[in-house]
Amino acid sequence: MRSTNQNGYTCHFGGASRLLESFLLPHPKRNLSTWVHPFREFAGRRFILAKGFAEHSPRIHGRFFGSEPVVLQRNPLFQSINAEDIAYFKEILGVKNVIQDEERLLVANTDWMRKYEGSSKILLQPKSTEEVSQILKYCNSRCLAVVPQGGNTGLVGGSVPVFDEVIINMSLMNSIIAFDKVSGILVCEAGCILENLISFLDNEGFIMPLDLGAKGSCQIGGNVSTNAGGLHFVRYGSLHGNVLGLEAVLANGTVLDLLGTLRKDNTGYDLKHLFIGSEGSLGIITKISIVTPPKLSSVNLAFLACKDYISCQNLLLEAKRKLGEILSAFEFLDSSAMDLVLNHLEGTRNPLPPSIHNFYVLIETTGSDESYDREKLEAFLLRSMEGGLVSDGVLAQDINQALSFWRIREGIPEALMRAGAVYKYDLSIPVDKMYDLVEAMRIRIGSSAKVVGYGHLGDGNLHLNISLPEYDDTVLAKTEPFVYEWTSKHRGSISAEHGLGLMKANKIHYSKSPESVHLMASIKKLLDPNGILNPYKVLPTSLMS
Amino acid sequence: MRSTNQNGYTCHFGGASRLLESFLLPHPKRNLSTWVHPFREFAGRRFILAKGFAEHSPRIHGRFFGSEPVVLQRNPLFQSINAEDIAYFKEILGVKNVIQDEERLLVANTDWMRKYEGSSKILLQPKSTEEVSQILKYCNSRCLAVVPQGGNTGLVGGSVPVFDEVIINMSLMNSIIAFDKVSGILVCEAGCILENLISFLDNEGFIMPLDLGAKGSCQIGGNVSTNAGGLHFVRYGSLHGNVLGLEAVLANGTVLDLLGTLRKDNTGYDLKHLFIGSEGSLGIITKISIVTPPKLSSVNLAFLACKDYISCQNLLLEAKRKLGEILSAFEFLDSSAMDLVLNHLEGTRNPLPPSIHNFYVLIETTGSDESYDREKLEAFLLRSMEGGLVSDGVLAQDINQALSFWRIREGIPEALMRAGAVYKYDLSIPVDKMYDLVEAMRIRIGSSAKVVGYGHLGDGNLHLNISLPEYDDTVLAKTEPFVYEWTSKHRGSISAEHGLGLMKANKIHYSKSPESVHLMASIKKLLDPNGILNPYKVLPTSLMS
Repeated sequence: MRSTNQNGYTCHFGGASRLLESFLLPHPKRNLSTWVHPFREFAGRRFILAKGFAEHSPRIHGRFFGSEPVVLQRNPLFQSINAEDIAYFKEILGVKNVIQDEERLLVANTDWMRKYEGSSKILLQPKSTEEVSQILKYCNSRCLAVVPQGGNTGLVGGSVPVFDEVIINMSLMNSIIAFDKVSGILVCEAGCILENLISFLDNEGFIMPLDLGAKGSCQIGGNVSTNAGGLHFVRYGSLHGNVLGLEAVLANGTVLDLLGTLRKDNTGYDLKHLFIGSEGSLGIITKISIVTPPKLSSVNLAFLACKDYISCQNLLLEAKRKLGEILSAFEFLDSSAMDLVLNHLEGTRNPLPPSIHNFYVLIETTGSDESYDREKLEAFLLRSMEGGLVSDGVLAQDINQALSFWRIREGIPEALMRAGAVYKYDLSIPVDKMYDLVEAMRIRIGSSAKVVGYGHLGDGNLHLNISLPEYDDTVLAKTEPFVYEWTSKHRGSISAEHGLGLMKANKIHYSKSPESVHLMASIKKLLDPNGILNPYKVLPTSLMS
Repeated sequence: MRSTNQNGYTCHFGGASRLLESFLLPHPKRNLSTWVHPFREFAGRRFILAKGFAEHSPRIHGRFFGSEPVVLQRNPLFQSINAEDIAYFKEILGVKNVIQDEERLLVANTDWMRKYEGSSKILLQPKSTEEVSQILKYCNSRCLAVVPQGGNTGLVGGSVPVFDEVIINMSLMNSIIAFDKVSGILVCEAGCILENLISFLDNEGFIMPLDLGAKGSCQIGGNVSTNAGGLHFVRYGSLHGNVLGLEAVLANGTVLDLLGTLRKDNTGYDLKHLFIGSEGSLGIITKISIVTPPKLSSVNLAFLACKDYISCQNLLLEAKRKLGEILSAFEFLDSSAMDLVLNHLEGTRNPLPPSIHNFYVLIETTGSDESYDREKLEAFLLRSMEGGLVSDGVLAQDINQALSFWRIREGIPEALMRAGAVYKYDLSIPVDKMYDLVEAMRIRIGSSAKVVGYGHLGDGNLHLNISLPEYDDTVLAKTEPFVYEWTSKHRGSISAEHGLGLMKANKIHYSKSPESVHLMASIKKLLDPNGILNPYKVLPTSLMS
């Protein structure tokens, strides 16, 4: 049992049968999102890659991508852009929105991890749905391939060209069109930056049901196109549930108005779902309507230690039942992840006594009553300690403490990069099996690399990372296809929230049946017969030829 | 201000600045659903139509359907069933699962409102996905049209044959396949009756995110195929958000395994959404996985009066914000609906002083803490009365009181039928505009009929009913297409939760753009080139020929 504060910024409970003290986070009058997740800037475009990472990065300038190199051939049916095309685009968009500047193109050709790099010669910035329609109609008639681009914060090479595709950048379509304070329904253009929407809603007393590390740069159109998950999925669920409608432009320029603002609408097939998560390969999303929950006034955050994975699992079960309606995040990391953070991120410290715990869990609650929520969380933690599910823990006392707790969880990707090379996997696995994969990987790899497990436990989403000083084909051979095969065997998903993009287009069969993939390809051909929309992505290239 | 109990079964607050008393519903150890909604049996198959209604019912034995008669022609490409077909079905299903008995066929040919009646000569009862696949493969090769049938509780003629389609009844596929107590994910066959799933989950400490009047008869496969809404939509949202996976058999017999049990899975297009709400016209759903929330221990129910619609609207806004995470139902009815119930349903009584209120609202909360939830609701109601949003109200004291309150709301359809003829519309309209339509209808129709408005205010779902002694073409002409045009003009949906079925297949253009309907038809043709799956439904017949 320990009861002293550490550096005056945390308050412990642990080993005892009673919470010694606990604290409620102050009601954040300023935007909640400005303090909860300090690492977000890193995940956005504004982050400058650490040199140590860049040296080890698998940056490949040729046509090889992914962990296992795949040779891609430019589709010979696609035309190359010529002077007439450029003149046409300038005519419809205005000269300044047809970008040929090399420096700007270099940025747009490269993903934020600098892993994928295309060679597009042109970037278009439409200002309206009509302009997107004109662009696509023209490109389709000319057989010019295009890549839609939002904030370009994706992790699977989905938002950059592979070859010389025309980049259609959505950033000028960034207007909020309408907001209904009774229903909480927001209608906006696809290029709105997520953080701007969050700020707008905060002023209106609402929140976005989606919150991501990359929010400072990512755009809602990209979020919807990739069916982004994020930190509050456990509370608000998938975009398939929250997006009420959208407008999309098909490959031939047809504008599909599915921009309903109704919570219920059973008139025919719900086509919007085809565009949610299809990564811009079936159409370009231009507008979105989304239902947003009212902002609630109290937020609490606990940082806990568990002795084993089964305790984490049981704690999740109890939290769902006992915290029920106020649970808003349930994240976990293992001690390897904690060690990495402490060793590689300056200013981080373990709020709990070091090195004796195997697992750490962050539980966040969000509710409408400060004193009640605090009492409820305290009572829950007390019971969990008495029952042996939790070995130790702290409740954040103020914003800075909350920041420091989130810094540990959100700092893991940065710590991994600073540590050297890393093979990254984003997997959905049934919660009871999830950590078995981490342990199986440790046995396979032995001492040649560190195997790190963390992620969104509440959603069954594991981020598995193999950390080693330098990229090593021997380690890779032990990792792939084992990770995919293991995940497939347990009916998991090889992409929980990142999408397939270019990186995993040819690996879809690990998570989807041949019949399903065949139907996807048929739908792709139906909607985009020339295959101009984001080619080489999502589906195996063999099916698209 | 009134403070006396009425008949000892309710406790009033009203007119005063303080709640005089309030009561928490007892924690229902027995299945919650057995008492909350007394009218459910009525909405299921087991209800026997009142004679008064049957006399006025628009039951038409020919080929005319809907409020506005539409002449349908049997698709001449479809074959008729012959002795060889029957022999084949008997071979694969066994003799007893090929039903030709006239009495059983009469039931299966007729919808529960007895409004639609087909003339199928055969009903098949497959026991497995493989059998469904064999049936469809055969029917597709023979060009025999089929109609999938669950509990046959639909309201738009979607689950009965139009002509002589083969009925594929799913009731023998009623097994629960798996339940994961950590994640709350249930996997089951499509023929499971909703109420059985609710009971099963109740024993496990979970609830279905879906609850319907017809739960005693309807099947989960039908619920998913029609994207059923129901009473707790405001809390748990759409099936598009809750269904994690499904298995469906396509028209050609291909089994599509989309039966994921993961909360997150971004590997390719999320095809399951095509089958949610497509009313069996793209494939037959055979298995489902769905995420279920933990059962919470406290339920409260308030019956309130509001002086005008704007107060109902503002009350909803406040309830979403102040009750936030515990709000589980927000229903409304107008005084016309109340009058109908009081006049036509025996044993009902207005818990509030009669005839002085224009609107009534039911607010249900569900949470994990009995005393806290009660206090929270009391405080909310107190503030709402002080602010003038609520004129009067009662909190249910026990199960019987809750039953009596729900009886009023849920008894409206029965009361409407007993009152004579009724034209029924199920509409989604932005909440702030919703009641304008009711008022516009009153002006149009005048004294020749009563216009009744009620529904799921929390979801923007209005049930608009035109009640009159006998069906009257003059009234109908004033009602249609006005209702559809008005709804369309306000970007509403002409079917919020009932689907289009046969009744509204040709009216889809009121809610969907030509481009959208065209794409739906293309997808239908892609998945079901011969059009054998539930023909004449969902999409306009002109597009399907």
